[in-house]
Amino acid sequence: MSSEQRVTLAHGNGGRFMRELISEVFAHHFKTDTTSAQLDTDADAVSLSLPDGIPMVSTDGFTVKPLEFPGGNIGSLAIHGTVNDLSVAGARPLHLTVNAFIEEGLEFETLHRLIGSMAEAAREANITIVAGDTKVVPRGEGSGLYLATTGIGVRDPNLNLGMNLIQPGDKLLVSGPVGDHGTAVMLAREAFGLSGDLQSDSANVYPLTSALSGHSALRFMRDPTRGGLATVCHEINRNTGYSVRLNESELPLRDPVRAVCEMLGYDPLYLACEGRVVAVAAAEGSDQLLSEWQALEQGKEAAIIGEIAEAGPVILQTELGGERYIEELEDEPLPRIC
Amino acid sequence: MSSEQRVTLAHGNGGRFMRELISEVFAHHFKTDTTSAQLDTDADAVSLSLPDGIPMVSTDGFTVKPLEFPGGNIGSLAIHGTVNDLSVAGARPLHLTVNAFIEEGLEFETLHRLIGSMAEAAREANITIVAGDTKVVPRGEGSGLYLATTGIGVRDPNLNLGMNLIQPGDKLLVSGPVGDHGTAVMLAREAFGLSGDLQSDSANVYPLTSALSGHSALRFMRDPTRGGLATVCHEINRNTGYSVRLNESELPLRDPVRAVCEMLGYDPLYLACEGRVVAVAAAEGSDQLLSEWQALEQGKEAAIIGEIAEAGPVILQTELGGERYIEELEDEPLPRIC
Repeated sequence: MSSEQRVTLAHGNGGRFMRELISEVFAHHFKTDTTSAQLDTDADAVSLSLPDGIPMVSTDGFTVKPLEFPGGNIGSLAIHGTVNDLSVAGARPLHLTVNAFIEEGLEFETLHRLIGSMAEAAREANITIVAGDTKVVPRGEGSGLYLATTGIGVRDPNLNLGMNLIQPGDKLLVSGPVGDHGTAVMLAREAFGLSGDLQSDSANVYPLTSALSGHSALRFMRDPTRGGLATVCHEINRNTGYSVRLNESELPLRDPVRAVCEMLGYDPLYLACEGRVVAVAAAEGSDQLLSEWQALEQGKEAAIIGEIAEAGPVILQTELGGERYIEELEDEPLPRIC
Repeated sequence: MSSEQRVTLAHGNGGRFMRELISEVFAHHFKTDTTSAQLDTDADAVSLSLPDGIPMVSTDGFTVKPLEFPGGNIGSLAIHGTVNDLSVAGARPLHLTVNAFIEEGLEFETLHRLIGSMAEAAREANITIVAGDTKVVPRGEGSGLYLATTGIGVRDPNLNLGMNLIQPGDKLLVSGPVGDHGTAVMLAREAFGLSGDLQSDSANVYPLTSALSGHSALRFMRDPTRGGLATVCHEINRNTGYSVRLNESELPLRDPVRAVCEMLGYDPLYLACEGRVVAVAAAEGSDQLLSEWQALEQGKEAAIIGEIAEAGPVILQTELGGERYIEELEDEPLPRIC
């Protein structure tokens, strides 16, 4: 394959080229140190070894543009996105399957870099890639690479979570600054003519969610991805009927995010994070949860950013002391962010 | 949503339009009769109820063009493809996750038809859709709709399968005519200027694979999809070193498939099936397996089509009495067949 520089349609046809694509790119990067967990590229389906407990599953698709951005790329993002969905639902992530839709003409060098980054993110998250599939789509479709990942984990019995547990008076926590991912992807698009050293927050949040295991004050967790923090608040509001009140002055926000949003007219509340957790907790235990997060490097900027109140809308208490309704996201502020 | 005729980028942004797309199309079609197995569109990850046994997983992507073809469409195909991969690996398929990459501008009417067909195929196969994700990609990408499905099942302890069990003298069986799917998709492409009443064989093969459960003569099963029967023979040959000898006169082949292949210069051995099973079995039990298949409506044209011999290549014994090497598939005869 070394003499071929780009993926061709023949790499998708089920024959020799596809076999080489899979063995020389995907299996090459996804190989593990333990022979028992090797990706079997000849199998139609693979057996899973799951520990005791209730299995949980989650799936996510990735079409981020550009494929690489400061702080990550579509490969690492496809690991983090699904690992994080399992984590905030109270599971320990264990295994992942991968679907790749590769555009004809993609450079092998790029594909190696993206899949290599995916493999590295999987190793860091202690999860194994157990099965995969590749398709090649004609030039012009597919935008280089789309990925889909499906994650399987086991529920942590010490994490009892549900939106139905949320009560008025509960506190809202976030594990770090919001909007970094959305802003970093924006800056990576030449169309904006901006640059900066802001990195995406794309990361595995399992260390954050597992740190709260066993804390009875915890009610609910979610990662604020597409639609951002505002959309998580609306999901809580829609499902519980309770008002969600955010305190702008407590909201962790990096200066470049604030600056870019002011310049371009975006609201950081709607911008995607890919390595943050929003948690709802009983008021009396919320300080302890905050301490658990702040003790971790990736949670050191965690904050209590608001609270749940009796029936009502989603409200932002502004730094100037006013109140602003936070509407549900309608139009498309920033497509292809994940 | 009734006033909107086409999918827009705003349907992918995480806000209200995406929520409506998911509830009015995907959740609408995927709803089930049992409340316990409802798709929870508000959850990051869902708990699975798995019976005792070893869990198995498989994943597959779908980019077939055109989206609809005689005998099926990308929706039903995305169910059959993954259900079949689990089935031939010896599992009972139970749950599926779905990723949809939808092209901006796709008509809602078309999306409803495809996802409705997907839901119907899932019900027929007795599997539940437990989780999903949708992304909208810009007009020109995505070719209408790509799907990826990941299936979870439980291994049947009475199906002991493996290529390593294959021995010289074993027989090769196929559950029905080959090449129907590939030919039907070809005929559905206007570019060929052909028409005919041939249907894709796209179907759930679990009834075929479970019919062989407990038969000790059975060694191995695989569904001949991309790359067709020839590619399955090469996989056996490459993994075992044994020669695979096909008998052309025993090969079930429909007249329209034969005719189209002769006209266009395709070899039906390389054309995809999406509802057939290839099995390898000990010679002494192979007639009984054949009877099990022929007793089923979908296996009534099953045949013993060849055998495994000592070390050597993949060979076709032609109807004229000659022998022809069957090469591994290299160039792309027919892209976007699944």
